[in-house]
Amino acid sequence: MKGLVIAAGDGTRLHPYTKKKCKALVPLLGLSLVERVILSAKEAGIKEFVIVSGYEGSLLKERIGDGTSYGVKIEWVHNPDWEEGNGVSVFKARDHFESEERFVLMMCDHMFDPDNLRLLLQRKDKKNILCVDKKIDEVFDLDDATKVLVEGDKIVEIGKGLKKFNAIDCGMFLCSYSLFESLEKSIRENKDSLSDGVEVLIDKNEMRACDVKGGFWADIDTPKSLKFVKMRLIQSLPNPREGIISRKINRKVSLQITKYLSSTSLTPNQISFLSFLVGLAAAVLFGLGRFPWVLYAGLLAQFSSILDGVDGEVARLKLIKSNYGDFIDSIFDRYVDGFIILGMTFGVYFVSHNLWVWIIGWIALVGASLSSFYKEKYKVATGKTYISQKYDGWLRYIFAGRDSRLFLIMLGGVLNQVLVVLCIIALTSNVLAIYRFFSFRRFLD
Amino acid sequence: MKGLVIAAGDGTRLHPYTKKKCKALVPLLGLSLVERVILSAKEAGIKEFVIVSGYEGSLLKERIGDGTSYGVKIEWVHNPDWEEGNGVSVFKARDHFESEERFVLMMCDHMFDPDNLRLLLQRKDKKNILCVDKKIDEVFDLDDATKVLVEGDKIVEIGKGLKKFNAIDCGMFLCSYSLFESLEKSIRENKDSLSDGVEVLIDKNEMRACDVKGGFWADIDTPKSLKFVKMRLIQSLPNPREGIISRKINRKVSLQITKYLSSTSLTPNQISFLSFLVGLAAAVLFGLGRFPWVLYAGLLAQFSSILDGVDGEVARLKLIKSNYGDFIDSIFDRYVDGFIILGMTFGVYFVSHNLWVWIIGWIALVGASLSSFYKEKYKVATGKTYISQKYDGWLRYIFAGRDSRLFLIMLGGVLNQVLVVLCIIALTSNVLAIYRFFSFRRFLD
Repeated sequence: MKGLVIAAGDGTRLHPYTKKKCKALVPLLGLSLVERVILSAKEAGIKEFVIVSGYEGSLLKERIGDGTSYGVKIEWVHNPDWEEGNGVSVFKARDHFESEERFVLMMCDHMFDPDNLRLLLQRKDKKNILCVDKKIDEVFDLDDATKVLVEGDKIVEIGKGLKKFNAIDCGMFLCSYSLFESLEKSIRENKDSLSDGVEVLIDKNEMRACDVKGGFWADIDTPKSLKFVKMRLIQSLPNPREGIISRKINRKVSLQITKYLSSTSLTPNQISFLSFLVGLAAAVLFGLGRFPWVLYAGLLAQFSSILDGVDGEVARLKLIKSNYGDFIDSIFDRYVDGFIILGMTFGVYFVSHNLWVWIIGWIALVGASLSSFYKEKYKVATGKTYISQKYDGWLRYIFAGRDSRLFLIMLGGVLNQVLVVLCIIALTSNVLAIYRFFSFRRFLD
Repeated sequence: MKGLVIAAGDGTRLHPYTKKKCKALVPLLGLSLVERVILSAKEAGIKEFVIVSGYEGSLLKERIGDGTSYGVKIEWVHNPDWEEGNGVSVFKARDHFESEERFVLMMCDHMFDPDNLRLLLQRKDKKNILCVDKKIDEVFDLDDATKVLVEGDKIVEIGKGLKKFNAIDCGMFLCSYSLFESLEKSIRENKDSLSDGVEVLIDKNEMRACDVKGGFWADIDTPKSLKFVKMRLIQSLPNPREGIISRKINRKVSLQITKYLSSTSLTPNQISFLSFLVGLAAAVLFGLGRFPWVLYAGLLAQFSSILDGVDGEVARLKLIKSNYGDFIDSIFDRYVDGFIILGMTFGVYFVSHNLWVWIIGWIALVGASLSSFYKEKYKVATGKTYISQKYDGWLRYIFAGRDSRLFLIMLGGVLNQVLVVLCIIALTSNVLAIYRFFSFRRFLD
């Protein structure tokens, strides 16, 4: 199915962000608005787009191109009459669609969670369907929003000035060609907004609503709304299933770094590599064995752990998550784990010359590497991600996850108690490994 | 769907195996014939059985019970007239089936690959369907087999004495209740074999054939055929996708051990544990550092590697494969790998007092543990088993699989060159890890 994106407006209310460029190119955390719309739709399965440009259209077309760099196909339509209502921009695209074809209509200034579009695409009825949000209280800048009155899933009225309404227009439609016919009719009557065309469809009993069920969406019209969306996107990044150290400590720092790095050209894979290098540096400093080197080593280990969250956050924020990215991240983690524990062991031995240190370090390494091995085993067996909080009983409190382990390692360095931490890791990681050895039976019968 | 198993015969031709017990209880590699039939059918999805006993029926019922120990449900029918034709035994079970019910009819002396039954169960036509083998040349003891003439998938004639035939009866049917009605008719006419009942169905155009497409099956009637099946089952155990050392060396020994252990009560999980203990013993001996201890250590490491194949072979041979069994096997492997490399490192250091040995050993351990981690990652991404021969390019020849690694370790011990082998493992396992780091992109985009 194709997506039709309206990107013709000048966005005067977004000044100064729209100085010398159209609204679609306003940057938002490393991507322009139109890029966010394209990539969000791509996540939900839309791979072909028709984009209608208007104000400063040639700059827009030059920047976005034919879609190759986003892994999609883009056709362009220019609307020189972009100063008229937005219904005209939609109407100009009609030659790019067949009369039987259904398509998704999106606005370049309406951000959305790909799940909203997935919900919409599940609808099999052949009417025109508008995404609406029934949680009216949570809508930003309600005064300016387009209101909708819905009965059942039928749209009865639409308009900015509605007195009686129970939903808000999210700016995304699943359409049939009849939308163009309705627009033709309303434009002929000098009513040239998209809402005018939609009203024609309402009169013909052809408009339906699809509630986004609390899914995120936002209309960006003013610097204030831009700021609001920025905050919401950042807030949505943390994964509630991460370990306690990740959630309570690392995220506070990593979100700031992510916010900063998202507007650079650094890719998530490059950030993974950076985290790897920082981890290696920590390992080398631990290997020196003495204070204050181990202090620096501990801090670097923790910093590597924080950066280990940033790569994924940037990928999610810029809508470029990939399985390969997850994969190389986890391989880097294995090497960092291995070398940091080696560095700690070497350093302690270097100072103490006690051979037992090697045995302890070794056991810690075997235990730590089993932790990730178990998680993969679980994923193979069930297709899902292992949640320590759910399955490890009270052992979830023994700090054996990777985030907790690196936090302990940091403490070990800062307090100059590296051997103690090595012993703790050797013990807890293997206790957990042995527990899972038996507990996994329930997933595997 | 229920399975009906005919286990009434005395099996005189299998004397002395059938002395004082019925044919169904003749042992074959750790299981009785009827147990093999039950567990093979269970693998294909049949969980409820009706078994018709006859000769020495109470002993049979006592041994097999209600099926709990096999994870299935068994109902019993006794046929005191077991000396009559086998059609009578089938007919006696009729009260255990509804008139609309379809069921699988099996013979306790006909062994089969579960895939044959899976093929049969895929058939949706409502006729009676007989499994047949069209590869006539490969049938053991053709003279004694029941021949079938098939046209299209329709059975035209059946009988031991057929002159013109193009398939052999494999002794397994997908039946409807009409089989009982046909048997009633033929028995009334004093024709009391199952083939007689089948002939009635042929006359009514209700018999179809399902080719097993080369799948293994065998009718066990004589000590000779018992020996043949034993050999075939053992031969079918090796997995052609295993590493070269497993296939060319370990299997030759492990199959002998498997053959022996299958008739003991040792479970596959206990064998995994044994392999683990042998591996630990190898690690301790390597830790002593000097010849001839490292020689013994190397031999034990190789023996552990061989035993590591036996657990799976016994499980497959006794039809008790389980995901949990595979899982604990792989966890034991991780510990054995970790401790053997630790033992080697410790031993070399103990003799040489060169700190670098620890670094080399450590790198070898990280590389070795990544090898299995990659395989799990691949399984998560694709749902399939990673085949080094297929995906690792020429690196498949660098001996980095677990079987090859333990073989190298054995050589290292036997030739008293433990450090050299440690260096090789450190190098090859990490070269492979880095290769896969990039090559996995194709599985993960």
